[in-house]
Parts: sequence; structure tokens; C-alpha cells
Amino acid sequence: RIKASGLKLQLCTNETQATRQDFVRKLRAMGFEVSVAEVTAPAPAACHLLRERGLRPHLLVHHDLVPEFAEIDKTNPNCVVLGDAAENFTYANLNEAFRLLIGMEKPVLISLGKGRYYKETDGLKLDVGAYMKALEYACDVQAEVVGKPAKSFFESALAELGVPPEQAVMIGDDIVSDVGGAQQCGMRALQVRTGKYR
Amino acid sequence: RIKASGLKLQLCTNETQATRQDFVRKLRAMGFEVSVAEVTAPAPAACHLLRERGLRPHLLVHHDLVPEFAEIDKTNPNCVVLGDAAENFTYANLNEAFRLLIGMEKPVLISLGKGRYYKETDGLKLDVGAYMKALEYACDVQAEVVGKPAKSFFESALAELGVPPEQAVMIGDDIVSDVGGAQQCGMRALQVRTGKYR
Repeated sequence: RIKASGLKLQLCTNETQATRQDFVRKLRAMGFEVSVAEVTAPAPAACHLLRERGLRPHLLVHHDLVPEFAEIDKTNPNCVVLGDAAENFTYANLNEAFRLLIGMEKPVLISLGKGRYYKETDGLKLDVGAYMKALEYACDVQAEVVGKPAKSFFESALAELGVPPEQAVMIGDDIVSDVGGAQQCGMRALQVRTGKYR
Repeated sequence: RIKASGLKLQLCTNETQATRQDFVRKLRAMGFEVSVAEVTAPAPAACHLLRERGLRPHLLVHHDLVPEFAEIDKTNPNCVVLGDAAENFTYANLNEAFRLLIGMEKPVLISLGKGRYYKETDGLKLDVGAYMKALEYACDVQAEVVGKPAKSFFESALAELGVPPEQAVMIGDDIVSDVGGAQQCGMRALQVRTGKYR
């Protein structure tokens, strides 16, 4: 419907459990005609940042997200990239990421979002933000968030659309990541009462 | 040596991976003649608080600590008690504790300490404080800490000794839990450069 109206559309997702390719495939299966270029997601944003700063990440992310980092040098890591790792959030994996960070002269923690929780068919789940806070506290470090609600994230979506913030509307179900982030960027925002809305 | 000198001794431990009985057994095996009454630990402090406020806990603690809560009603929980659960800090268990908390009208999170990390023979491990921060963030709640560095914890140790704070010295390796907590209570404190000291 939005497409038919002639309005431009850019999907801003904090999805970090799958590549953009997988994400688009899922949406297409649901009948939404979207392309990878129409998706702004945290992992590519992180790759951009890693390249820019010569960082080699240790990844604590979902198995299915790993391909997004295929081109990135991951030897001898000098930072940790944290995503919604879900089942990969084991005691052992969290300790491993922690030990790497605390062992760095200046720990660098990059987080693909800071959501508190999300909803799945079998109930609410802790989101990446909770684990980010755990590592921030343990290592006395402040994470750099590259997904929503980071301003740079919305700006790159706007750049993709080629429109100024005041001509764009953000629609989402998360009051902090979606609505707050967009507003801080000068956009208007609508909160929908679906998904995690309580 | 301290005992032979006639000085009074009270062990203030944030050990939440074992009962006081186990803790004392371990120390005795090392040649330290201590009794259960000479140990101030978070789990009994938590039990005291739970009884006082009619709280029924869901426990996310180490297997070996569970006996300390044997007398406590744990049916239909209206709070979560968090200890250093170690291997019990699984993705599933953290989500379970989170769901219980977020489902409460007024979430009550009681944490048996707020240490950032500790050292074991196989390396540094995330301590209970990191997981406390994760749940605090996800549920937008402030945990009540019953172990070190809580003032009430040191006060109960002083009461056990029957001495005022200015006549007591706290000795420990943690700058926040041991030294900071004791100083806030009016005691002097010594930091030893063993254990987790870096």
C-alpha cells in the first residue's frame, strides 16, 4: 500500500538474528515486495564502522548473522561486537566476550541495538540491550550502539531515501528504539500497538 | 593468627555458590578453625528480608546454595532472588527470571551481591552484578542488594561481633564490595592485592 501510494519506503530493522538477505526473503514470503537495498540494519552499519576504525571483532551474535561479517578480519580481536545472540548467550560465551574485553587496554564494545526485550511466539525474551548492560558494568565501559536508536542509523536510512528528516515518518512498536530514536533525529514518529507493545 | 591474638573475627563473604556449611567445611579443610556463626553471608540475609516482607522468591542461584532457602515458601513467586548462579546462568533461565519479573505488578529483584567479576582457576568470570544489571535494565527496576557492599550487611556482621564500626577493620580484595562498603559503614578497610586484584 505504501509503495502503491508513491511514498518512499526504507525498512529500519534492529534484526540481528539473520542477514538482510534472509530478512528480505521472509518478508517476500509474506507478500511484501522489498529488496535488500530497502533495508537498513545494524550489522552492515557495524561493518562500516569496523572498517573505518580498523577494528577486528570478536562476534557474540546469532549464528545466522555471521555471514554479514564475512569480509571482516576477525583475527586477534581488538573489540567485541554484540548482537541478539539468543541461544548463543550461554554462560561460556558471555564469559569469553567479557574476558576479551577486560583484557584490552581500552575495551571497545559495539552493540547492534539496545532493546530491552522482544516478543516471540513462546513469550518475551531478553534483548541485546540487557547483555550489553551486563558487559558494560563488568568492564566499566560504555558500548557504542550502532542500531536503533542511534542517530547515525536513522541518518543513513534517510540518506538512502534522499529525504530530509522533517519529510519522513518513522513507524514502530518500540518507544525508545523506534519513536525516541527517530524524534532525536528530527523525524516524526508513530508508535503502533502491536508486537512488544504492552 | 588473628584468633590467637585475641581479636574477634567475622568472615564477610559474598559467596553464593555454596551454603555457609559448605563454606566452613572448605575453610576447615584448609586449616582455618571457623564456625558457621562466624560467617556473614548474603543468602541468610536474603532469607531474613524475605520473611520480614512476606516475599516468595523465584531462585536464580547456584545449585549448591538452594539448601539455604529450604525453609522459605517458594510457591507462586512474587520476587526474584539472584545469586552467582554460574552454570545456571543459561539463556533459558535468564529469560524465565525476566518473564516473572516483568509480569509482576511491581517487580522485586533481590541480588545477593553486585560484584562485577571474580577469578577462578580457569580465568575471570562474570559475577552476579553483571546479570543484575541485565535484569534491572530489561525490567526497568532497581535491585535490592543484600550482600556486600550493602550497609545492612556490614552492620549485621558488626552486631555479631558486638563492636562499633570504628573498632573494626575490613580486609578484602574488592575495592567496591569490600573496601567501599565497609568505609560507608564507618569502618576502616584494607585492600589486599590477591584474588581478583589487577
